[in-house]
Amino acid sequence: MERRFRAHFINSLSGFKSGSLLATANANGETNLAMISSVFHLGADPALIGLIIRPHSVPRHSLENILETGVYTLNHVAEEFFKQAHQTSANYLREESEFTQVGLTPEYYDDLLVPFVKESSVKYALKLVEQQKLKINDTIMVIGEVTKVITDPSALNSDGYLDIASLNSIAISGLDCYLRAEKLARLSYAKPDQQLKELG
Amino acid sequence: MERRFRAHFINSLSGFKSGSLLATANANGETNLAMISSVFHLGADPALIGLIIRPHSVPRHSLENILETGVYTLNHVAEEFFKQAHQTSANYLREESEFTQVGLTPEYYDDLLVPFVKESSVKYALKLVEQQKLKINDTIMVIGEVTKVITDPSALNSDGYLDIASLNSIAISGLDCYLRAEKLARLSYAKPDQQLKELG
Repeated sequence: MERRFRAHFINSLSGFKSGSLLATANANGETNLAMISSVFHLGADPALIGLIIRPHSVPRHSLENILETGVYTLNHVAEEFFKQAHQTSANYLREESEFTQVGLTPEYYDDLLVPFVKESSVKYALKLVEQQKLKINDTIMVIGEVTKVITDPSALNSDGYLDIASLNSIAISGLDCYLRAEKLARLSYAKPDQQLKELG
Repeated sequence: MERRFRAHFINSLSGFKSGSLLATANANGETNLAMISSVFHLGADPALIGLIIRPHSVPRHSLENILETGVYTLNHVAEEFFKQAHQTSANYLREESEFTQVGLTPEYYDDLLVPFVKESSVKYALKLVEQQKLKINDTIMVIGEVTKVITDPSALNSDGYLDIASLNSIAISGLDCYLRAEKLARLSYAKPDQQLKELG
């Protein structure tokens, strides 16, 4: 397969992905914002989130910042600003902040060095706990522990489920397809010989 | 936070996930089928896909099989059978095949030991290339290389993008929420000082 064709095709195979803006800063507080679709859940207690960064991709500035400061935020991309989020993947110079370039707003809480994205309705801060290079293809896996969550309490169900679809978080497929998600059903905990129920 | 509340909440944070059925077999060809939402893209060339298995979760039988045979398949869950897919997460006995228990159909190609899920429209076979325990929380990361893809050619765009939404693949949020995805737009490759275009 031709290189670009192959990239589109293989990236489609793993299925729908989350779309997040990774916000970082260097020690001087100069910010960086990068669109990523490689965020994955690793565990709830402790609350661990992984992400994959390719060594020569645009988010390498983000990786340098994470290693320098040990903190970063992830901010769900919503339908209202997915085009601006996508534009952060353009190859801007090191000293240009993508916040300014694409028109999104940095928002600071407490004394955290790194900003959140004001426009995002589901966002959380992480501290770096592990990074490792996967020898098989030189990608970098970054693991962080969630230290703070900022979201809209009206989307939080009584059992802890956060209804991110109601907050217009988008899904991504392949390299560049953005999708709206519509709930089919929540299903009860499965047990042998017991009929599933729809929750809520 | 209470344990179950925390599990729902933290699982919601990483955003939308893919829903796949992991099909495996032991050396005797006895099959196992497990719902997973931890599949992630690792690279296109070679075509590498990762997945995370918790040590005490139901898919541990799947992990034993993968280590025994070195091969497995991933099969997108579609809207037409997401309840059956969810039911595979019930704690069946080792010797009970979830295919039989939930009413999905194993389908064999060539001389591959492991089946695909006949009902799935996007499915691929992998060979195990790496597994490692993440020390931080004892989860297992399994990395496989794609060796065969079976899908509907009508969903393949000319640039390699596979339109999985048109094949009714579902997205997952949290532990138990299933969602339909609807395309907003595909966006052109982003460059500084250039307006994004919608593709197709």
